[in-house]
Amino acid sequence: MFETAELGHKIGRDEYEREAPKVREELLQAQYALHEGAKFSVVVIVSGMDGAGKSETVNLLNAWMDPRLVENNAFAKPSEEEADRPRLFRYWNVMPPRGKVGILFGGWYAEPFEDRVAGAIKEPKFESLLEEIVRLEKMLVSERVLVLKFWLHLTKSDQKKRFQTLEGDPKTRWRVTTADWKRFDEYDRRRLIAEQMLRQTSVGEAPWALVEGADAHYRDLTVGTVLLRELRKHLDDARPSPAKREAPPLAPPIDGLKVLDGLDLEQKLPKEKYEAELETWQGRLNVAMRKPRFKKRHSVAVVFEGNDAAGKGGSIRRVTAALDARQFSIVPIAAPTEEESARPYLWRFYRRVPRRGRMTIFDRSWYGRVLVERVEGLCSEDDWMRAYNEINDFEAQLVESGVIVVKLWLSISQEVQLERFNEREKKPFKRFKIGEEDYRNRAKWQAYSEAVNDMVERTSTDLCRWTLVEANDKYFARIKILRTLAEAIENAD
Amino acid sequence: MFETAELGHKIGRDEYEREAPKVREELLQAQYALHEGAKFSVVVIVSGMDGAGKSETVNLLNAWMDPRLVENNAFAKPSEEEADRPRLFRYWNVMPPRGKVGILFGGWYAEPFEDRVAGAIKEPKFESLLEEIVRLEKMLVSERVLVLKFWLHLTKSDQKKRFQTLEGDPKTRWRVTTADWKRFDEYDRRRLIAEQMLRQTSVGEAPWALVEGADAHYRDLTVGTVLLRELRKHLDDARPSPAKREAPPLAPPIDGLKVLDGLDLEQKLPKEKYEAELETWQGRLNVAMRKPRFKKRHSVAVVFEGNDAAGKGGSIRRVTAALDARQFSIVPIAAPTEEESARPYLWRFYRRVPRRGRMTIFDRSWYGRVLVERVEGLCSEDDWMRAYNEINDFEAQLVESGVIVVKLWLSISQEVQLERFNEREKKPFKRFKIGEEDYRNRAKWQAYSEAVNDMVERTSTDLCRWTLVEANDKYFARIKILRTLAEAIENAD
Repeated sequence: MFETAELGHKIGRDEYEREAPKVREELLQAQYALHEGAKFSVVVIVSGMDGAGKSETVNLLNAWMDPRLVENNAFAKPSEEEADRPRLFRYWNVMPPRGKVGILFGGWYAEPFEDRVAGAIKEPKFESLLEEIVRLEKMLVSERVLVLKFWLHLTKSDQKKRFQTLEGDPKTRWRVTTADWKRFDEYDRRRLIAEQMLRQTSVGEAPWALVEGADAHYRDLTVGTVLLRELRKHLDDARPSPAKREAPPLAPPIDGLKVLDGLDLEQKLPKEKYEAELETWQGRLNVAMRKPRFKKRHSVAVVFEGNDAAGKGGSIRRVTAALDARQFSIVPIAAPTEEESARPYLWRFYRRVPRRGRMTIFDRSWYGRVLVERVEGLCSEDDWMRAYNEINDFEAQLVESGVIVVKLWLSISQEVQLERFNEREKKPFKRFKIGEEDYRNRAKWQAYSEAVNDMVERTSTDLCRWTLVEANDKYFARIKILRTLAEAIENAD
Repeated sequence: MFETAELGHKIGRDEYEREAPKVREELLQAQYALHEGAKFSVVVIVSGMDGAGKSETVNLLNAWMDPRLVENNAFAKPSEEEADRPRLFRYWNVMPPRGKVGILFGGWYAEPFEDRVAGAIKEPKFESLLEEIVRLEKMLVSERVLVLKFWLHLTKSDQKKRFQTLEGDPKTRWRVTTADWKRFDEYDRRRLIAEQMLRQTSVGEAPWALVEGADAHYRDLTVGTVLLRELRKHLDDARPSPAKREAPPLAPPIDGLKVLDGLDLEQKLPKEKYEAELETWQGRLNVAMRKPRFKKRHSVAVVFEGNDAAGKGGSIRRVTAALDARQFSIVPIAAPTEEESARPYLWRFYRRVPRRGRMTIFDRSWYGRVLVERVEGLCSEDDWMRAYNEINDFEAQLVESGVIVVKLWLSISQEVQLERFNEREKKPFKRFKIGEEDYRNRAKWQAYSEAVNDMVERTSTDLCRWTLVEANDKYFARIKILRTLAEAIENAD
């Protein structure tokens, strides 16, 4: 596959000086159009062989574009905080908002590539990391991120020449290190692994652009032209914004039987029994969270979803009462902020992934997309349909990195919900919790039930099960939640 | 001063069980009112002697309030990323938005206190750190943060008893470490230093609440009551929101002479000379930023302010062209986002302070408050008047921690500005840069001049000077900027 980038491409000075200014000006125009429209964001990954001009390319992009609308990101060894989180955490952290360009030096490719070259990971692991990347990029593209990947290539002899030239000049000698020469010795292995990597990750949504790096003029002009072409293509693309599309009516279930129908919502726990169990399970939860083994290897992400007034708040308080305040944080999920809605959907959740030894409680969660956003038509059918897989991927990444994911659906009957709404209206300090919207949501009970049913069916995976909590009786629900949580942590290996 | 907290305060079980539920319910109500109104945020600092119940108090606050509206923060040894930034950086990072409560375990007091006890810092340094805290808290209070500080106290004999009790119970034995007993040996020294710290930082805006910690009932009820009282006081406070107050007309300068009048805006640099100088100064800047000494000790914050169309963008591009893209980031300052406007003014700038070895370029900056916000009446006179001192403090903190701060005002004449506006309207890809607003701003030329004059007078300190850049000629301006920047970095010790 590298043959086209080993032809000795060259561009003369004259041609360069004629063409470059045009590309620059048009690139700037495209960039301003991107900024004004703010319809999508751009992620540019610059990768390639050493000496092929990776730094130069990043600098070029900053020089040719308005650098105020560009964010540059390089990734050294993961920091403590990053190492405590899933692999992709630090890339999510730098996701540019719509209207901007984020340049990722090496991007999410550098780590798997270097690990594979060094033999730190074996073939199957490498392939599964590449698979993870393919799915990530596919999702980003669906979330209106233009993903551009440049691989700067160089033949073995050109690499040698390049290092020798740099070493020959006292002004650039510092740029060539023994590590570079070591990489030169590994050239053939690197080329082989790079070929595999590019082949497996050059998919329709986000193909690689292979650029020969030996001649700076050719390289610069090619990178600039490809970037311009892709920007324009996307600026011209008049796809409607997803939020405006209507979700089509749902297909009726054939036998009418849904997973929630199987729940016995009337299960109860008497008060005395509740108080004893509460102490037991809060104690066990507390002890489980203090185990050195847990602190070293795991963290916990708890998802609280459920009908309105199902008792999420009260349950969360019973959980946190068992913990040291330094160990948990609670993330209430409401409508996204400006910063959040300018980025891919999962961004706001990824940034809240707990560090090792800690617990994050999501009071409503990433499931909003397949629940409220689906039912209220806030996103297109395409969006929520693909969300199931994206969520499964996301949770798999969490589990893979040691996060214990506990997902709770608190289920109450329509009658109990109405009772609780009425109660709330009476208590002055709970009144703020009930509005017209709540009554409107009630009217969509059936649609929500369908959505919950689909959600459980499609996202209750072996890796990450849903726990359905019968919540007409608050005592029963709270104990079931505490027990589920304590046992999940106790059983984590 | 600790005498009142060494009286052996106690509350019986009956009284506690009668009073506690009332306080809890009212606290919850107050918290919901805080959340609904979102007029201010609350920072609670919990500090005190070991064994006096600091963790218990934090847990109590989480149990008594709705933990979804509370953020808990503990501060261990600074992480790599934190250690690379000014001391207060990590506290700024966790500043809660309006409507929420942030609990800071130990807060910004723990580090100076422990350093002083250990003898790692001397008396004058300790006092200057306390002074810094006083100014920080004063500013936070002005920015509508309610700062509550609890010092949990314990006599020496009570501390001993407490440790012995914990050790006697197998379930709590793990909580007492040799470090605790070491701290017990230092009790008298700690008490002395704590007394000094509390005295110097117990100011009107943010006084300490001293709470005896020996009896849990007394401690819990006192903390709850104080918190409730302060919350209520602030909820009832009907001060108008600052944004609604009109800035009074400016006093005319007595002799009409202003600092900008002294500039010779007509200074020019011919093109050939410019091109030679550009290469020289970009080269020197590049070399200066690569010196190991710089990378180890310093970072650079560059402030670009100036008239509209003064050439900030073009100048920034000439600076970044000299740098490796991994070394800099550019922060364009526009209207604050939701997240930003819910927090104290300086928050958005503090989070962008560069790490060691890097440069952050602020395209407009924290000076917005004393420029556009002042002139357009977006904040009250009180707000922009106090901003001068706050900005000087902020910059002093940057300089103190090794940040090289370069502040540039790009000055052009009214005639040149008009020419440039007209030019921009002709170029299609620059048209987006010019709007009605720009012409409106022109009408306020005089008011802006006054504001710039005051800004330079009050914030051009020995520690951190303004550089006024004559910018009618772009070449002249760019070289002056590059030279200023390169020399500032070269001369940093």
